[in-house]
Amino acid sequence: MTAHYEMAPIGHVESPLVDRETAPKQGFEGAPEAWLVFDPEMADGVRDLTTGDDIYVLTWLHRAQRDVLAVHPRDDQRNPETGVFSTRSQDRPNPIGLHRVRIAAIDGLRILVHDLEAFDGTPIVDVKPVLVGGR
Amino acid sequence: MTAHYEMAPIGHVESPLVDRETAPKQGFEGAPEAWLVFDPEMADGVRDLTTGDDIYVLTWLHRAQRDVLAVHPRDDQRNPETGVFSTRSQDRPNPIGLHRVRIAAIDGLRILVHDLEAFDGTPIVDVKPVLVGGR
Repeated sequence: MTAHYEMAPIGHVESPLVDRETAPKQGFEGAPEAWLVFDPEMADGVRDLTTGDDIYVLTWLHRAQRDVLAVHPRDDQRNPETGVFSTRSQDRPNPIGLHRVRIAAIDGLRILVHDLEAFDGTPIVDVKPVLVGGR
Repeated sequence: MTAHYEMAPIGHVESPLVDRETAPKQGFEGAPEAWLVFDPEMADGVRDLTTGDDIYVLTWLHRAQRDVLAVHPRDDQRNPETGVFSTRSQDRPNPIGLHRVRIAAIDGLRILVHDLEAFDGTPIVDVKPVLVGGR
């Protein structure tokens, strides 16, 4: 029997992006501002996040197809089919989104970031600092 | 009722690291070589990974404490207690490990990487390419 791991959201994304067809593939390609909205019980965990911090936001890409192992990158049929672990496709066995963003402003449990390519309502599962050297 | 998301491992780490006390806090602080060992049914997903690629390996930190929201960074009591989302502590609500490594060699479903600070047996849940600009 294969092990399974269960996650619960710590918050969600508020964004004007609502549609896969019009969303940018990567945040640095021109995504809008978005708010990270954390659940009240996570207050102690987010209390030291600071404007200007570079962070990784990990999301759960709840619209993904999880039985897909190869895709045409960027949803473009002209690109040769590629194993999903060499792509950033949202379609993959465990559809975790990885987004590197900078904190633009903080309002309590609401954190404003630029260039986040996630749909409105996307669940947030973790936040980590970017370390020295961009790791 | 809060939503929950279920993940299954796609492989696991083979590493000489077996002990939290002796493991480095970050891979670039001198972790040993490790093998990423993928499950056979993931073959199509990993087929395009190539020696020299910089990748993010996402793991499930199965020994983590999930009810912790603030920690003394680097397990050092002299460091002030800090919200976990400003740290890389493995103890956090959804203990996903994020490791940036370079592929050193490939042997079928086994991929050799340097500087991976994960224990032997750690489940792998996703792999993503590092994009232009280190994102």
